[in-house]
Amino acid sequence: MGEGGDGSVGGRLGRRVLVKPDGRYLLLFEPGGSRQGRVPEEASRSRGAGELRWHPLLREWVTVAPWRQERTYHPPPEHCPLCPTRPGGLETEIPLPDYHIAVFENRFPAYAGRQGRCEVVCYTSAHRTSLGAQSVDHARDLVEVWRDRVEDLSRSPGVRYVYVFENRGEVIGVTLHHPHGQIYGYPFVPPVIERELASSAAYLRRTRRCLYCDLLAEEIGGPRTVAGDGRWLAFVPPFARWPYEVHLAPLAHAGGLTELGPEESDSLARVLIDLLRRYDRLFRRPLPYVMAMHQRPPGRGGSHYHLHIEFYPPNRSADRLKYLAGSELGAGAFLVDARAEDTARELRGLG
Amino acid sequence: MGEGGDGSVGGRLGRRVLVKPDGRYLLLFEPGGSRQGRVPEEASRSRGAGELRWHPLLREWVTVAPWRQERTYHPPPEHCPLCPTRPGGLETEIPLPDYHIAVFENRFPAYAGRQGRCEVVCYTSAHRTSLGAQSVDHARDLVEVWRDRVEDLSRSPGVRYVYVFENRGEVIGVTLHHPHGQIYGYPFVPPVIERELASSAAYLRRTRRCLYCDLLAEEIGGPRTVAGDGRWLAFVPPFARWPYEVHLAPLAHAGGLTELGPEESDSLARVLIDLLRRYDRLFRRPLPYVMAMHQRPPGRGGSHYHLHIEFYPPNRSADRLKYLAGSELGAGAFLVDARAEDTARELRGLG
Repeated sequence: MGEGGDGSVGGRLGRRVLVKPDGRYLLLFEPGGSRQGRVPEEASRSRGAGELRWHPLLREWVTVAPWRQERTYHPPPEHCPLCPTRPGGLETEIPLPDYHIAVFENRFPAYAGRQGRCEVVCYTSAHRTSLGAQSVDHARDLVEVWRDRVEDLSRSPGVRYVYVFENRGEVIGVTLHHPHGQIYGYPFVPPVIERELASSAAYLRRTRRCLYCDLLAEEIGGPRTVAGDGRWLAFVPPFARWPYEVHLAPLAHAGGLTELGPEESDSLARVLIDLLRRYDRLFRRPLPYVMAMHQRPPGRGGSHYHLHIEFYPPNRSADRLKYLAGSELGAGAFLVDARAEDTARELRGLG
Repeated sequence: MGEGGDGSVGGRLGRRVLVKPDGRYLLLFEPGGSRQGRVPEEASRSRGAGELRWHPLLREWVTVAPWRQERTYHPPPEHCPLCPTRPGGLETEIPLPDYHIAVFENRFPAYAGRQGRCEVVCYTSAHRTSLGAQSVDHARDLVEVWRDRVEDLSRSPGVRYVYVFENRGEVIGVTLHHPHGQIYGYPFVPPVIERELASSAAYLRRTRRCLYCDLLAEEIGGPRTVAGDGRWLAFVPPFARWPYEVHLAPLAHAGGLTELGPEESDSLARVLIDLLRRYDRLFRRPLPYVMAMHQRPPGRGGSHYHLHIEFYPPNRSADRLKYLAGSELGAGAFLVDARAEDTARELRGLG
């Protein structure tokens, strides 16, 4: 594995760029280090990328990626590809005896080369833990890693949207248990973001205000508040589509991660960890969830699109899941079995 | 249980209207009988209906129905509420020793009274079977039942859209195994239908043609055809979002079930059963699926919206499921692991 070219972008977290024999990059983030190396813009050019097909009825892109059928599926812990490489053991995705936070290009990407990017974010080298179990300091480092990747990928020629997310738990379909998230650099602005951009723009035209800022003003200290520190708020939106859905958002208007000041980044880490600990206390075991960071696309929506992170846990109780079925999948009409005010009260009581 | 008032609407299937002690109606459809009774328009007026909450970011309605948490959940077969009532046994939803096809108001409705309707359609009195195992004649009767319900509910004051669907299989979240489908009379036009109406209307303006008619013209006898009889076609759309997604549609333009002539209704029954048998042969066991009938809303889209039935099986292979996760749920961007041409060839080979 060779080191990338030199370069420095500043920041309190060091970053080292390595290139794997198959051309994929691996980024190692460590406290106190310096920024070394530049991420190759098209390191993965030769790798297969998904075929985009247009859905003319729904007017959205569908990505066909047949090789993903072969992706690593529930490996035993001793063959976890996201663990550090044990001395004398098989080489994992991270050929080092330990790491702090690591990012690398997905081996089974839906988007690659000039058609976007798929990155895996290893939150920690420890296998049996989770994001919510990390310190606020560690989460603060993760926020810096996210920001680094959003900055880089936003400049990538094939990327129209940078999407930071996490799938957690087997019931969500997670095939690797090592705590990790993902970042997709989509070659298009995905449908949900397009819809939110349109609704925010329409609201701005009508009211001269940001829709999400107005939502937040309704929620601060109200019956759906879950947590917060005066800079970021965690709340169950009145229109939650999942029983324990929670939104996290900065109170001061910001369109994306890169617009946050240091205090806002610290606050995000604090409120994020606070929420995840409540989630894991809810049923006294790790709660599965999808974490979806919604921010404005590069170069669009700056004045009216408001950064927020949505969490969708699939549980409707300790032992029952909410399934998406005919109404949600076929008609797009969500039915939810819980009132936002009730689930917010439950989560608020778990502080 | 009292009989409803008299009335006759014609048709080759007889229909009897009963009213349950709690006010919900039960409709019994039988070959050769006459049409007796009128469906009470607001029989369920006093029952709880879901609370509609507006999602301002996605601009869609979310329905909150907390009492659905208590709905019947995987009862043992001897307590199946959709079986006929055994002599001397507990009364089920159908207080008769046998039935052909029965429809009744859902006991745990998301929509009721003046705010829509939720009906359960019991395909047959036999517990251990499925829609695909029925004869084409029986399926033809079911098409007539659907049509009857669409006609009735379209006239109901609280109903803006009639949605015929089926959730099949435990992995889809089905809690009752007796073969049944559902019909929702939504108090709004659901988001997916609104999107399809908009895309179809835009296409009509641009081309003076029906979008779906043009899609069908591309598919007849092509590499994505699965089955058909010259009147209805079953095919995997090029933009399938699920590996084994199949669409069923009439080749002659029709906006909804009620616009089908007798031959087209027969053809629907034939092609439907053909497809379902292929599905169950695919992995040599009952394939789970969502069946979603898309037709135009009452009074809208007649000239450009084209009736079709979409099937989404969640399997991506015999033992692996496609999960909706971060990309689909949080961004709306579907990733699919299979090419439509390949899955169509597989299904075509199972005739």
